[in-house]
Amino acid sequence: MSTGTINVAVENIFPLIKKFLYSDHEIFLRELISNATDATLKLKHLTNIGEANVEYGNPIIEVKIDKDKKQLHIIDQGIGMTKEEVEKYINEIAFSGAEEFIEKYKDKQGEDAGIIGHFGLGFYSAFMVANKVEIITKSYKDEPAAHWTCDGSPNYTLEESSKTERGTEIILHISDDETEFLEKGKITELLTKYNKFMPIPIKFGMKTETLPKPEDAKEDDKAPTQEVDNIINNPNPAWTKQPTELEEKDYASFYRELYPMQFEEPLFNIHLNVDYPFNLTGILYFPKMTNDMNIQKDKIQLYQNQVFVTDNVEGIVPEFLTMLRGVIDSPDIPLNVSRSYLQADGAVKKISSYITRKVADKLKSLFNENREDFEKKWDDIKIVIEYGMLTEEKFYEKAQSFALFPTVDGSYFTFEELKDKIKDSQTDKDDKLVILYASDKDEQHSYIQSAKDKGYEVLLLDSPIISHLIQKLESTNENVTFTRVDGDHIDNLIKKDEEAISKLSEEEKETLKTFLTDTIPTEKFSVQLEAMDSSANPFIITEPEFMRRMKDMQKSGGGGGMFGMGNMPDMYNLIVNTNHELVSEILHTKTNKKKERLVNQALDLAKLSKNLLKGEEMTAFIKRSYEMIK
Amino acid sequence: MSTGTINVAVENIFPLIKKFLYSDHEIFLRELISNATDATLKLKHLTNIGEANVEYGNPIIEVKIDKDKKQLHIIDQGIGMTKEEVEKYINEIAFSGAEEFIEKYKDKQGEDAGIIGHFGLGFYSAFMVANKVEIITKSYKDEPAAHWTCDGSPNYTLEESSKTERGTEIILHISDDETEFLEKGKITELLTKYNKFMPIPIKFGMKTETLPKPEDAKEDDKAPTQEVDNIINNPNPAWTKQPTELEEKDYASFYRELYPMQFEEPLFNIHLNVDYPFNLTGILYFPKMTNDMNIQKDKIQLYQNQVFVTDNVEGIVPEFLTMLRGVIDSPDIPLNVSRSYLQADGAVKKISSYITRKVADKLKSLFNENREDFEKKWDDIKIVIEYGMLTEEKFYEKAQSFALFPTVDGSYFTFEELKDKIKDSQTDKDDKLVILYASDKDEQHSYIQSAKDKGYEVLLLDSPIISHLIQKLESTNENVTFTRVDGDHIDNLIKKDEEAISKLSEEEKETLKTFLTDTIPTEKFSVQLEAMDSSANPFIITEPEFMRRMKDMQKSGGGGGMFGMGNMPDMYNLIVNTNHELVSEILHTKTNKKKERLVNQALDLAKLSKNLLKGEEMTAFIKRSYEMIK
Repeated sequence: MSTGTINVAVENIFPLIKKFLYSDHEIFLRELISNATDATLKLKHLTNIGEANVEYGNPIIEVKIDKDKKQLHIIDQGIGMTKEEVEKYINEIAFSGAEEFIEKYKDKQGEDAGIIGHFGLGFYSAFMVANKVEIITKSYKDEPAAHWTCDGSPNYTLEESSKTERGTEIILHISDDETEFLEKGKITELLTKYNKFMPIPIKFGMKTETLPKPEDAKEDDKAPTQEVDNIINNPNPAWTKQPTELEEKDYASFYRELYPMQFEEPLFNIHLNVDYPFNLTGILYFPKMTNDMNIQKDKIQLYQNQVFVTDNVEGIVPEFLTMLRGVIDSPDIPLNVSRSYLQADGAVKKISSYITRKVADKLKSLFNENREDFEKKWDDIKIVIEYGMLTEEKFYEKAQSFALFPTVDGSYFTFEELKDKIKDSQTDKDDKLVILYASDKDEQHSYIQSAKDKGYEVLLLDSPIISHLIQKLESTNENVTFTRVDGDHIDNLIKKDEEAISKLSEEEKETLKTFLTDTIPTEKFSVQLEAMDSSANPFIITEPEFMRRMKDMQKSGGGGGMFGMGNMPDMYNLIVNTNHELVSEILHTKTNKKKERLVNQALDLAKLSKNLLKGEEMTAFIKRSYEMIK
Repeated sequence: MSTGTINVAVENIFPLIKKFLYSDHEIFLRELISNATDATLKLKHLTNIGEANVEYGNPIIEVKIDKDKKQLHIIDQGIGMTKEEVEKYINEIAFSGAEEFIEKYKDKQGEDAGIIGHFGLGFYSAFMVANKVEIITKSYKDEPAAHWTCDGSPNYTLEESSKTERGTEIILHISDDETEFLEKGKITELLTKYNKFMPIPIKFGMKTETLPKPEDAKEDDKAPTQEVDNIINNPNPAWTKQPTELEEKDYASFYRELYPMQFEEPLFNIHLNVDYPFNLTGILYFPKMTNDMNIQKDKIQLYQNQVFVTDNVEGIVPEFLTMLRGVIDSPDIPLNVSRSYLQADGAVKKISSYITRKVADKLKSLFNENREDFEKKWDDIKIVIEYGMLTEEKFYEKAQSFALFPTVDGSYFTFEELKDKIKDSQTDKDDKLVILYASDKDEQHSYIQSAKDKGYEVLLLDSPIISHLIQKLESTNENVTFTRVDGDHIDNLIKKDEEAISKLSEEEKETLKTFLTDTIPTEKFSVQLEAMDSSANPFIITEPEFMRRMKDMQKSGGGGGMFGMGNMPDMYNLIVNTNHELVSEILHTKTNKKKERLVNQALDLAKLSKNLLKGEEMTAFIKRSYEMIK
């Protein structure tokens, strides 16, 4: 048996780094700026604790493009490196300097000093886009500057440099197939994406805004160049501050910073701030929601120590909250693991339930503090709350105190208030409390009107997932049932003990029913005679609650339990009001032809009411109606 | 100045591999099975060319879970390694064995022998999930087997092994936080995802289907175990065969293999097969499309030498074809680059245009061979074709010969045929050819009817992107204009030289117009008197083509050029037919009250026609209409 040490063939490392380190080459810039930030924060820490006798000042990081020379420069004013340190930190790949630094100084202050140090191989990602990399660096210590050059082979040169200012300059000689990284637009895009909130100011200028040459200039005259500079980041974003330091306008302006292209104001925000048992800060915003849940996902940005990581927070934030916007910053979220592992991770689970709790608490306090305002916002936020109630049991419980049920007339009730309000009038003879709702005020107008005429409340529930939530509410509230207003005629929806008196005799009813079932297409409508108020419409088309709800549930996903029900044909009842004058007239009209004409016109009107009169039938109805006016 | 060689600190390599190699740990299994496949194909090649004097036989790859020992085994019957080869290939990280092999043997046969060899650091990805890895391997050469063990530090042991069968067994000791990879379900999922079509049969069994212990068993009795085996892959998937070897039923059954949960048959398929100037095979299927373009993306799977890589083919396949399904296999697609680089890559561009051409050719041949069948399928495929015409110029040109324009009566024309058919009747007095279309047969029924009454053809164009395509068709066909049937009344849509004779005098018109503009809400409707056929409806609501189309274009994305137009209120014209009897009656009715009643009822009917009568207005209309029947 032999033993040995695995050897890494150095000449193969560079191609591998290039190939495997990150699938996205653009990451190199994030890495190099993280390193520059790191170097600056290290210096700050050392001056703070008196280990470095230099002026910390107001250091910045500078990014410059030199398009003519095909170079990209990243310059910091941080700790710098001596020649020996370059040997140690740069020439030994994967020697994680940050870890060593934190290890060394953590006792002195108990905490790491905000060093990013998260991205190990960082510096070498430069070789993903550059065929040659130079480092010119001057340490804060009183030693000469060093100049390191490497062309992507494992061979490097290291010499003294004349650089006098403290800090490090990285020069990337951009490869021919990566020249997009010499474009101002591209670099601006990357800085904005990854470094917009990093803690050291970043200045981005370029020398390539070539002005037009004067007419008489010679061919080889250099055109004058113009420098365009600005600080591209906000080193102190709102989420890094304490809630007590911030006013509403600060939250509003931070929202604008995050989403400059978003014209609508957010409805409210939630400041996250916890450091035990995990570290997490952030600000979440409730934007105006639409009923389309899918398009609004993936707007929350995840940071680690102010470095942008991803806008996919799946698994970290409970699914229903991925419709929110904002920022979460936590060094405690493991990133290089699979999403399924992430969801099973204990720390991540705690983060997720912390966020859920904070959101519920905020909603509750908004409700308590200014109910009127909360009601105004309800329509714009309900989809999130309803989805949360459906998917997170804890949230469902908490939401009892602030989830609202609006009526078609614009009143808003909590579920308890609603039950209280309607229990006298809407409890049926079997002691069931019947909650009436509509999904569309326009389409179901005549049905809503009938219910209101009886003095009933009608809720307006129009979220795409509402049928699932109704199902859940029914299963957790005994003796409560929901039914849409067009599920049956109103006297059947809430059955009372009153006996309905029909103007027609049993015999007349028999005759009428026979004629109707012969005239009306029974494969579509099942005829049902009812003794109703004489002022109610003569014909009413209804759609039984159960089947319709199951179909709705299937349409909105998750299944209504019964597979394939979504494909079943719609079935309707045709309720005929035996107490309406027109129905008597139908019965007593002598000629069958005239009888049929009456039935068909009444049926068309009932179809209109239920939005079922279409195409050729509609055109014929209109033609016939014009005839009737004349 | 000093020079040197960058050194890789070996003790830091393992944590880095674990952290950076792949963000998704599950990739390890793909890597190890690729290696096993590689080793087997190498042996096949050597036996083929007579360099290995052993029987190739019918080698398989075996994957086994030993849940009790927390081990995962991957066993092949391939080329194996001698102790020296283990030293060389395993102990030197990043020494790419496959490349050396191909280099050495490529002259002998001119082609690489299907060696995967794509995944460089492959083997070491094992350490992403295992805290200890063993290799037991016996070369095809007459040398003793070797047993290598490494616990994730750079130290390994290497000794002789008693293994007698040729091939390599990898034993992973799965880490405690990666135990999901000991679950049968998880491994099955991964094998199905990545290795379903790899070229060597893969057998997957496990020893952990523990049967219940007998009642009287002692605590430490081992429960009997049961082995469940099966070959999980199809080593010869359809796309690796020549089109001549395959019948329609083979394509159909391969579709079923790819999408076992898909119940609908594909409409047709396209076999891709090219080896110059790039290598690409594959089969694309046209499924039935719906009008929702987003939900059907990302169904094409990308393979490299039968190893699954991704189901995101963005940038490789032109966007309009990402709605198709199927498989593309090409070793020539660079994967570790950014998507934007991919799209600029010359080879990838060629691949993309090859696929576009093949799809166009297939569509053309389907059209030519069986037009009737093609017409039947049109509705299910049009969204892809129309989107392609809109986004790929080459495809737009080719599609001229097969893109269809269906009429509301179910006839299908190519654009040339359509122009021929209607040029006599639908050319207006300014020599413009006016193409009429509807977007909804039901909603626009009465308008369609008016056009048909004039003998015009009406197309049925209902894709969400159709307004963009219409715009393009107009801009590339001189003197052709599209207009929806409800854009104006039919005599105005196609203006002929005929003089319209009005029954009303100028004075009467003046009186009528004054009354109408006083009665009708002019912020919604702009009243317009027209002398039309007396059989046409008295009131007609129209929506001018230009604004409506711009709005449609904005809704479907891409902008109609004018920003914010989507938010403008709908504007309608109310066309009043001065030759209709009812209009005369309105004019001559004495009391204003009766006049108003007539106007309002006629307006309601016009609104019904255009689907504009809603809610309370509808309920009132119905009530009024019931009164009128009685």
